[in-house]
Amino acid sequence: MGTGLIGGSLALASRGAGTVGSVVGVGRSAASREVARAMGLVDRTTDDLAAGVQGADLVVLAVPVHEIVRLLPEVARHVGATCLVTDVGSVKGPILAAGDAAFPDGRFVAGHPIAGKEQSGPAAARADLFQGANWILTPSARTRAGAVERVGAFCRSAGANVVQMDATWHDEVFATVSHLPHLVAFALMDTVLTTERGEERLRFSAGGLRDFTRVAGSDPVMWRDIFLMNRESVLRVLAGYQQALERLAAAIRDGDGEALTDRLLQARAAREELLHRS
Amino acid sequence: MGTGLIGGSLALASRGAGTVGSVVGVGRSAASREVARAMGLVDRTTDDLAAGVQGADLVVLAVPVHEIVRLLPEVARHVGATCLVTDVGSVKGPILAAGDAAFPDGRFVAGHPIAGKEQSGPAAARADLFQGANWILTPSARTRAGAVERVGAFCRSAGANVVQMDATWHDEVFATVSHLPHLVAFALMDTVLTTERGEERLRFSAGGLRDFTRVAGSDPVMWRDIFLMNRESVLRVLAGYQQALERLAAAIRDGDGEALTDRLLQARAAREELLHRS
Repeated sequence: MGTGLIGGSLALASRGAGTVGSVVGVGRSAASREVARAMGLVDRTTDDLAAGVQGADLVVLAVPVHEIVRLLPEVARHVGATCLVTDVGSVKGPILAAGDAAFPDGRFVAGHPIAGKEQSGPAAARADLFQGANWILTPSARTRAGAVERVGAFCRSAGANVVQMDATWHDEVFATVSHLPHLVAFALMDTVLTTERGEERLRFSAGGLRDFTRVAGSDPVMWRDIFLMNRESVLRVLAGYQQALERLAAAIRDGDGEALTDRLLQARAAREELLHRS
Repeated sequence: MGTGLIGGSLALASRGAGTVGSVVGVGRSAASREVARAMGLVDRTTDDLAAGVQGADLVVLAVPVHEIVRLLPEVARHVGATCLVTDVGSVKGPILAAGDAAFPDGRFVAGHPIAGKEQSGPAAARADLFQGANWILTPSARTRAGAVERVGAFCRSAGANVVQMDATWHDEVFATVSHLPHLVAFALMDTVLTTERGEERLRFSAGGLRDFTRVAGSDPVMWRDIFLMNRESVLRVLAGYQQALERLAAAIRDGDGEALTDRLLQARAAREELLHRS
């Protein structure tokens, strides 16, 4: 369900690996369905959920996070008794709760592939999008081990490394390494344009600002939903960030060069840690 | 003066263009002088300011901003009466004031090439670093028109587009498009590492955080000096940014999807404006 960048790429990768028989793309947008068909991402498409999931062995929910929560009970009403269900949403806690409620027998396996790019939509789909990427699964106590096993093998067949994680910890980690950076970049672009003679200032932007533009160009509706769904974790890490920024502001205000250097060295150490681990 | 990335690249570009006769690299670090000589960036090097600038037609101060202010009166004591002096500092107001005081006859032309990269030092020098880049000159009422003309021609010979701008407006603009983005990135990296189990979180960082790492890897001492020297403008744009961030936090806290979408769309519009103009 969803024939965009993630759903489309997963269909391509799975077909290439020979792990799927027939792939049905279910989506509301006629234009996206047409592109998905024309590009050969899927065997057929439909806008009818019931018809689309009928007889399926696996349903992958590759739609925005609020849509996933809304669709889970509907999918449960229409799939067969042995069909596995997974998702690719960037927030896991609320989706796992909705999935466990919709599939009390533990057939829902919550997932999150750490892959993507600036472009979205089926035209951006690539068979190698998940090659070498981490694909996080966050099973609950209810999720069946066999279901985790099979969904994990499916993700691996698309080229990903499967990692298991607690859903709450997942949401905390991604609030830090993904949701916060997006908020920070959105706020930065917003600040620049709303400042006096903002467009004139933009003319002089070089590396500094430009590095943030990819992130700030991300889909506003998708990110609004992620921020709202992961509200508590996002607000917690955002508060920490606001404090870090205020510490820097105070050091500049006080002309405290030593404190400033300490903070900047700490930041560079974090960066080196990051590069070292990648 | 200064044989690092900017000074070294400018020497290379000017020698390549044939606009200079002999280039003397003046610097305190014996290692940097050795690299500059070995790479053929300059004809000779010295750590003696007086000897280095003797007989010069043009002195370029390519050292950190506080060093520029400190060295200007010393350069004035040792150069000949017709020698032009310019600099490449990222903050212009205080440097222009110091330059006008040191050269009351208007021979100092304050400048700022909008070029650079993550690496620093002479080994990173490149002859094409300024190709197509903006090189801002911020003459005062005191600066001689003929000096601006000649320094401008020198910058153009290195491949740059020369733009004239008021020094105060320059500092306000670069607080927005360069100094703030660096502060924001430093604070972000600082936040991630100081959070609970921060190193573990870093393992899962993908595009979102990684886009900020280049900026956060910049030289801490150089940036400390820039933040402190451009304090008022930096604090003003930082306050605007803190408000933008708090507006986003409030919208998330209130679950106000509409306000959140408005802010995110505004940010994306700023980005499109930026890409459109580049």
